[in-house]
Amino acid sequence: MEDYGRFLVLLVSALLVGFVSVIFSLVWVFHYREGLSWDGSVREFNWHPVLIITGFVFIQGIAIIVYRLPWTWKCSKVLMKFIHAGLHTIAMILAIVSMVAVFEYHNAGNIPNMYSLHSWIGLTAVIFYSLQLFLGFAVFLLPFAPVSLRTAVMPIHVYSGLTIFAMVIATALMGITEKLIFSLRSNPAYSESPPEATLVNCLGVLLVIFGMFILWMASRPYWKRPPEENAKALLTTGGTPEGTEAESTMTDGGNADKSDLRINSEAARKQNLKLDEAGQRSTM
Amino acid sequence: MEDYGRFLVLLVSALLVGFVSVIFSLVWVFHYREGLSWDGSVREFNWHPVLIITGFVFIQGIAIIVYRLPWTWKCSKVLMKFIHAGLHTIAMILAIVSMVAVFEYHNAGNIPNMYSLHSWIGLTAVIFYSLQLFLGFAVFLLPFAPVSLRTAVMPIHVYSGLTIFAMVIATALMGITEKLIFSLRSNPAYSESPPEATLVNCLGVLLVIFGMFILWMASRPYWKRPPEENAKALLTTGGTPEGTEAESTMTDGGNADKSDLRINSEAARKQNLKLDEAGQRSTM
Repeated sequence: MEDYGRFLVLLVSALLVGFVSVIFSLVWVFHYREGLSWDGSVREFNWHPVLIITGFVFIQGIAIIVYRLPWTWKCSKVLMKFIHAGLHTIAMILAIVSMVAVFEYHNAGNIPNMYSLHSWIGLTAVIFYSLQLFLGFAVFLLPFAPVSLRTAVMPIHVYSGLTIFAMVIATALMGITEKLIFSLRSNPAYSESPPEATLVNCLGVLLVIFGMFILWMASRPYWKRPPEENAKALLTTGGTPEGTEAESTMTDGGNADKSDLRINSEAARKQNLKLDEAGQRSTM
Repeated sequence: MEDYGRFLVLLVSALLVGFVSVIFSLVWVFHYREGLSWDGSVREFNWHPVLIITGFVFIQGIAIIVYRLPWTWKCSKVLMKFIHAGLHTIAMILAIVSMVAVFEYHNAGNIPNMYSLHSWIGLTAVIFYSLQLFLGFAVFLLPFAPVSLRTAVMPIHVYSGLTIFAMVIATALMGITEKLIFSLRSNPAYSESPPEATLVNCLGVLLVIFGMFILWMASRPYWKRPPEENAKALLTTGGTPEGTEAESTMTDGGNADKSDLRINSEAARKQNLKLDEAGQRSTM
């Protein structure tokens, strides 16, 4: 892998920023708010930021870049797909539980639901995320979808995954804004910049930085899981037909010819990178 | 160009959504708020959403995809660079004026500045945007930067451009949230979903849709400005050394060899696309 050290620095930085974000959310609810419980009170609401930041931001971020971790390249593609889908499933469950906490808190206090832009975009993100997970499972994990369908769906899968991730972070920033305005009305007010406001503003900044790390790592062509490593792993472990089928999704089976097989060589991977960068340069 | 019709449908949809967003911002300030003026009152503040949505979202979005418009491919690269930089400059000026409006309104009413997460991320976005514009001008428009530097900077330029654009939309959503909570405190409150709240929530949704259109169009490899068209234009118009220099930035001059020249053929462009997609499929 090219620039292995640089990748590790970015990965450790992202994990650190994500971990500190989770800690900040816990400090927020335990030190400045009333802590956590499940009783319809504001303590039940407090599960919302904690679970969103832990699950819908941090775990989703890890799920997005899990294929990029170089030490997983010796694992079979099918195993990595299960880890990818499993982490996204955990993130989805935590997001849904965190929404239930808000609805129960609202209903217990006769606060209207679904009136704010935060709630509109947030619910849309959860619905799109669930759809993405369901479609990803049906198309890429179950063995029924033809390779041509996988090929057609993959660019949409990648684009919508990254867009939903960005949308989730934007929604979290709106949620932070709402909550600080509602809970810091006076003595002290949000506009007086008390320590709680500074801490939670910093939490918002950390979420943006975490998102930028994940999007950078996920969009660099030279940190992609290399097909040849995958093929080697399959050969070593005695690839099953399922394994071969999973591997075959990386080549365009619909129009498979000898030229397609060239991506299974290191030289072709380098050329891929070179042309990829040349493509980016065409916007210069 | 492949899928010319689909590109046009997306472009017209994006322009329509962006245009309706600007109209919505005007309806908001003229029909529901006190309109526009420059006198330190809330009418001066109202320039902020109007100029941000017009300049920092709509015009920035157009600037990002300007290289992708097929009818511009016969224009010289240098001309397109000037249009790209010019639109971004207009967007930056409107963003700065819109910030001055807020600071003047705050100062006139003794409202603290820079306490909210919206203001932190918004100011950061404007600073990064200005830096991006300055560096883009120095590296890609002025004739001094060596090709190797341009090649190294381009992926960062593209990534940071798209990330700042997403950050601006996220900041606009936070701003909408803040403004609706502050201006709809009671009779009617935001939580009662009066028509103004519904209109402005819809404006927020439109901004997200606009962003998604722009990011999709900007990230599809098959809608890139093709190098060979550019070269043809240069030949037809009798390319100047400047023009040739600009064109040469699309090849990796640092390691230029015969294989690099292959990207100047249609076949190589198709292979670029094929390998590009194969690369995306490696995350399957």
